[in-house]
Amino acid sequence: MSKPSPTRTVDRSHAEALDAADPLASWRDEFVINDPELVYLDGNSLGMTPKRTVAAVRDVVETQWSGDLITSWWKHDWLNLPLVVGDELAPIIGARPGEVVVNESTTVCLFQLVNVALDLGSDDERRGGVVAVEDTEFPTDRYVVDGIARLRPGVRVRSGLTDLDGVDVVVRSLVDYRTAALHDMAAETARAKAAGAVTVWDLSHTAGVVPVDLTTAGADLAAGCTYKFLNGGPGAPAFSYVRSELHDRLRQPIQGWFAQQDQFAMDEPFSARHGMAAMMNGTPQVLGLTAARSGISVTADAGIDAIAAKAHALANYTLDLADALGLRTSTERPPASSGGHVSVNHPDATELQVQLADRSIIVDKRDPDVLRLGLSPLTTRFVDVHTALTTLHELCDRAPIRS
Amino acid sequence: MSKPSPTRTVDRSHAEALDAADPLASWRDEFVINDPELVYLDGNSLGMTPKRTVAAVRDVVETQWSGDLITSWWKHDWLNLPLVVGDELAPIIGARPGEVVVNESTTVCLFQLVNVALDLGSDDERRGGVVAVEDTEFPTDRYVVDGIARLRPGVRVRSGLTDLDGVDVVVRSLVDYRTAALHDMAAETARAKAAGAVTVWDLSHTAGVVPVDLTTAGADLAAGCTYKFLNGGPGAPAFSYVRSELHDRLRQPIQGWFAQQDQFAMDEPFSARHGMAAMMNGTPQVLGLTAARSGISVTADAGIDAIAAKAHALANYTLDLADALGLRTSTERPPASSGGHVSVNHPDATELQVQLADRSIIVDKRDPDVLRLGLSPLTTRFVDVHTALTTLHELCDRAPIRS
Repeated sequence: MSKPSPTRTVDRSHAEALDAADPLASWRDEFVINDPELVYLDGNSLGMTPKRTVAAVRDVVETQWSGDLITSWWKHDWLNLPLVVGDELAPIIGARPGEVVVNESTTVCLFQLVNVALDLGSDDERRGGVVAVEDTEFPTDRYVVDGIARLRPGVRVRSGLTDLDGVDVVVRSLVDYRTAALHDMAAETARAKAAGAVTVWDLSHTAGVVPVDLTTAGADLAAGCTYKFLNGGPGAPAFSYVRSELHDRLRQPIQGWFAQQDQFAMDEPFSARHGMAAMMNGTPQVLGLTAARSGISVTADAGIDAIAAKAHALANYTLDLADALGLRTSTERPPASSGGHVSVNHPDATELQVQLADRSIIVDKRDPDVLRLGLSPLTTRFVDVHTALTTLHELCDRAPIRS
Repeated sequence: MSKPSPTRTVDRSHAEALDAADPLASWRDEFVINDPELVYLDGNSLGMTPKRTVAAVRDVVETQWSGDLITSWWKHDWLNLPLVVGDELAPIIGARPGEVVVNESTTVCLFQLVNVALDLGSDDERRGGVVAVEDTEFPTDRYVVDGIARLRPGVRVRSGLTDLDGVDVVVRSLVDYRTAALHDMAAETARAKAAGAVTVWDLSHTAGVVPVDLTTAGADLAAGCTYKFLNGGPGAPAFSYVRSELHDRLRQPIQGWFAQQDQFAMDEPFSARHGMAAMMNGTPQVLGLTAARSGISVTADAGIDAIAAKAHALANYTLDLADALGLRTSTERPPASSGGHVSVNHPDATELQVQLADRSIIVDKRDPDVLRLGLSPLTTRFVDVHTALTTLHELCDRAPIRS
């Protein structure tokens, strides 16, 4: 489709035509829509509820737990749920079977993986090292790294990734949570490797919206969440990825009984299971895993390539419309980036978010001046973007604009 | 009630009379019973499903998440759920408001608390220390401690708790998971303190069945799970307790954005929130927390004192009946212990567990020879114990007994 004129772009019928031509349009029917009037542009923070998740959670609570009780750990394979769900997520991020586990929170997964990364290069698990992280990185990533440096003597944190000389571990989000900028995973992994560093990729703002191929990119370690574009539910468990070739050298710091080789022997000293099972900790959170698994299955069924293509189209449309309306954005134009959201900057962002919410338009805000418009391809329509941006434009016209 | 004769004890009508006189008997109706014939004596591993939990989980998935989406973090106070549920659990274990958080797995909570304990005594968070743990302790507790010793130079593990000279941290279950032996929390906490050690109590086999008064006992740190006697659901989040007087010295190793003072400012270096909020990590697991909260409310409503009294009566009855039937037990007679289960020892335990299951009687097994009969006061009837033990007695008569 050739690029329409600005006049055509602001016309609502253009958005309607894009929706009519959208091959993923019918997937919206797979989600619970309690309020048809709601314009929800925050699926990058919390994805909507798949209808199949309602059924899956009812089944696990009302049939498996209620009926089969303790025997469910074997009968329904709850014992291996983190690995089973990991294998179902793997193709979506270009991982191979046995390379992903879904478990605990992103914070805990990052804590584990940064420690794994520090200990990869040495037989002495207690060695030090330099961990590099951007000072604009998502907070949890920075906080986790600082906490590890406090805990482990010899571990130091360096701010910034321009010069990686002397760096042992890089911690980095593939998509910037403010600007949606998408980094080149293969090139940046290789650059770190050339400097002798291993990279821990944070895919929280990536998984389920951007095509990621961990295998081809040569990525070693990654973590991410399942409650954004993967629609896994509030506080759904996070995932960890460790490249197969590193599994022989995988030691993680939080040693729990689910990582133990003969879990129910209970008499032995700790001896970690091989592969991603070594990344397990305590008893898996079955309810959260069930919702995560269901959300992941929606993305798997719709197809990540089709989803990524629509994310790209949505981002292009949003930027074109913002331009046509004279709104200021800090998101680079795709294909340089298409990280599933577009950031509109305005000094009155806080007040504008409230005014939009009063009109049933939900967007996210990040200090100081960013309105994040989350574009979740399975649930976001082009007309939703049109409604949000034209309303925002009207509100800006009404309010004094400070910049 | 005076103790009945062995002949009277083995009579089923005696069990029926005990059930008829049980003030908690009607609480069983508050749980989902899919199979009325099932004799479930494994509530010490996975508690049954409260009916109110079915409603609560449906509400959080189908109304809150589906309808209110991202706004639920504020509208339904999801942001503070770990602290809110912690405050609701607190009275059940004798903690004060603001001393408990419910979050992550028991393994992760123990990892955090042992690190907290190591760092309490010093301004230098990186100091070493000696952690003492029984070699018969529950596996996760031992594994976690070994992992910390591997991670932190200067931390050493000592096996056994007889001599605490030179010990800095004691890690200990209040109830032994094999024998149900119940330790004296106040006396053992004081003995450790006299030796200069702080104790991390594991209340996993305790919470919701044994009366625990952390405040009066002078306990400093504790963790435990909510999926056993608290009926919180499979893999429900665990709890951490830190005595208020220690909150000023509370630093934990896994620094996530939910522990950050101004969480959504996102620009600042890490500065922990005060109190138990400092023990939070990543995004709270809302589904698991909802089920845990619901299970905890059942125990709160029934009353921990009434529950503990019935646990005591059930344990007494089980031991009396086992004695009368000539079955060998390794559980001390209450009140020396009443940890919510009775262990019957038999060399054919593995086979007997299967044969009992074939007869719809579910008990737990722990190597090498322990059949654990979980006595969960809100769901276990005296006739359940009668059915289980008389059936076990018949099976033992039939099978060759090796010891």
